[in-house]
Amino acid sequence: MLGRLNHVAIAVPDLAAAAAVYEGTLGAQVSAPQPLPEHGVTVVFIDLGNTKVELLEPLGEGSPIAGFLEKNPSGGMHHLCYEVDDILAARDRLLAEGARVLGDGEPKAGAHGKPVLFLHPKDFFGTLVEIEEV
Amino acid sequence: MLGRLNHVAIAVPDLAAAAAVYEGTLGAQVSAPQPLPEHGVTVVFIDLGNTKVELLEPLGEGSPIAGFLEKNPSGGMHHLCYEVDDILAARDRLLAEGARVLGDGEPKAGAHGKPVLFLHPKDFFGTLVEIEEV
Repeated sequence: MLGRLNHVAIAVPDLAAAAAVYEGTLGAQVSAPQPLPEHGVTVVFIDLGNTKVELLEPLGEGSPIAGFLEKNPSGGMHHLCYEVDDILAARDRLLAEGARVLGDGEPKAGAHGKPVLFLHPKDFFGTLVEIEEV
Repeated sequence: MLGRLNHVAIAVPDLAAAAAVYEGTLGAQVSAPQPLPEHGVTVVFIDLGNTKVELLEPLGEGSPIAGFLEKNPSGGMHHLCYEVDDILAARDRLLAEGARVLGDGEPKAGAHGKPVLFLHPKDFFGTLVEIEEV
């Protein structure tokens, strides 16, 4: 079922500062910041050739990463996103296996406009898992 | 400087249980466990096509992931490994940029037998970064 690793998401308290470190210190290619108000984050993408890192900064009230940054004020790895061919088939398999899908279980349009779902980190040894149909 | 994402490492308290979840629930291809006593971990690899996930379980006394699992008893994302062409040139650039290299600054043979270095997570917004020469 699991396809490629679409991205690793890293939550940071200051996107401009983090982008400067990835660009300057690590010599990475960092995109311009994109505000995604419907997701409560501003994001930059770091293209690594085979996959990408997304740096996320909270945007607006009730950002889904606000709680994570309260617990991890310096930032940290937030979730992994895996590609799947068919998100509804993947969801049904996961539910049948006893995994918990967050929210109402219906796929939403993710940061790339593709349908995504998030899975409970307690079912995956502390890792928040996103699946994205590609 | 940054090349491809070589792997995402996830520390888990019980490797057999985690491998079963990745294989059964997520339908991933999981390798046989490899004990790496010189690194203080047992590892399985999950091939995702474009990159891989490594699940790590502590092995022996003083495992480098023991402290992480004390703080995160269910497990969690532990580090990201990026490929570089020349690890000594990468190290010198990082030091010149003010980043801290862990240990004595001399590359060691990593889990794949290639030279690796680890960088201080405080310099990278809470993410432990490994660089590996490929």
